[in-house]
Amino acid sequence: MKKNTKVNAAILIIGNEILSGRTQDTNTSTLAIWLNLIGVKVNEVRVIPDVEKNIIENLNILRKINDYVFTTGGIGPTHDDITAESVAKAFGLKYKIHQEAFKILEAYYKPGEFTKGRQKMTMMPEKAKLILNPTSGAPGFNVENVYCLPGVPSILKSMLGALKNEIVGGKPILSHTISLRTVESEIADSLTQVQIRNKEVEIGSYPFFHAGKLGVSIVIRSENQSKIDSCNLEILKFVNQKKIEVVDR
Amino acid sequence: MKKNTKVNAAILIIGNEILSGRTQDTNTSTLAIWLNLIGVKVNEVRVIPDVEKNIIENLNILRKINDYVFTTGGIGPTHDDITAESVAKAFGLKYKIHQEAFKILEAYYKPGEFTKGRQKMTMMPEKAKLILNPTSGAPGFNVENVYCLPGVPSILKSMLGALKNEIVGGKPILSHTISLRTVESEIADSLTQVQIRNKEVEIGSYPFFHAGKLGVSIVIRSENQSKIDSCNLEILKFVNQKKIEVVDR
Repeated sequence: MKKNTKVNAAILIIGNEILSGRTQDTNTSTLAIWLNLIGVKVNEVRVIPDVEKNIIENLNILRKINDYVFTTGGIGPTHDDITAESVAKAFGLKYKIHQEAFKILEAYYKPGEFTKGRQKMTMMPEKAKLILNPTSGAPGFNVENVYCLPGVPSILKSMLGALKNEIVGGKPILSHTISLRTVESEIADSLTQVQIRNKEVEIGSYPFFHAGKLGVSIVIRSENQSKIDSCNLEILKFVNQKKIEVVDR
Repeated sequence: MKKNTKVNAAILIIGNEILSGRTQDTNTSTLAIWLNLIGVKVNEVRVIPDVEKNIIENLNILRKINDYVFTTGGIGPTHDDITAESVAKAFGLKYKIHQEAFKILEAYYKPGEFTKGRQKMTMMPEKAKLILNPTSGAPGFNVENVYCLPGVPSILKSMLGALKNEIVGGKPILSHTISLRTVESEIADSLTQVQIRNKEVEIGSYPFFHAGKLGVSIVIRSENQSKIDSCNLEILKFVNQKKIEVVDR
């Protein structure tokens, strides 16, 4: 992959607990922020159940239209952890014990405690590359452009360091935020004009409630700092004219 | 739709701010918990950017394979709010001023303040049905099986009351949670056996870290309370045999 071209990714969150609302997903924002910093734009996120057919279908769509796919969840030892086997099927690869992973977990557990249930965590698609886990031993894995990470947020976070040199991003996506004591409808027309004059930057407008007060955060995003700067000046110009207060947020 | 059949839904989260990681989505869990209570199971969630093509494509897939689709985001007054126009295009409907919405917002704003930007919030697919907004005036809308809600979590929540009588669910999905002071690999084999004997319940296993201690929550889900109860007894049996502590969580 060439440096400095646009690089994109999809995130596939695998887990009934997110779909039932029982668990609040936070892995999306963790991954998205991390990917942005290394110049990878997240195009799409899908949350799907622990169902083999759904995992295979979605993975085979997403991996073909994105430079990278990151999956979270379903790589533990219990019966509902079916991500590794499903990924093997999606790629048409054998699902078998990964020797390196086996050695890691054999050394991690006390003698006699490396049970059948724990050995399941070493079953992966053939020739998968390990993603080391400094928190709890059991590694994630990578096949082609697909990276499979655990669902537990603290473990996932601890594994990103080992991934940093694997992912080749483009130019980092820069952003600048202007927060205003106003409501969106007060600035909508002016902001539309700025967006029309600055087609190559992405301008987002996000209302917020903070400490009992209404406000709007305007977020300018681009790979090009000077384009962000000139867009920022145009926005501050109409903000001053309208006598709107700029606030911290 | 017949009562007591399985009813499912998809959630389509529309917004660059979620994909960039800037904003943590919480609408998924709000909607999922609420839908579960009224007997609607969330099959899938997709997060997509504020791009017309993506909105149309995803909506036209999801609305055909789900009983209901709920969208969040993109119905405000600014240039990046393109959900209403995109939904109109997805259904092949005209995008025009909704007279009832116009009257509501005309009354909501002071004379002279119902600006062009604010009037944009009354533009909807032709014949859309309004979803009233008790918080900030601007309504959401419904076309066929698609319900379009705002992205601001507090406003979205305030609009669910008005929706309750619109959505016809099946049997509520019941659940029971058993939290244990153990790790997943300690119970994986036994839990697999329980799942094999109880194919009609969904058993999920979720590790947690709480107050510095490891644990696992086992969640049993079914429409049938007696099936949950008998599954619960089978789990408690092996938990007792293994002398694992049951904890609150």
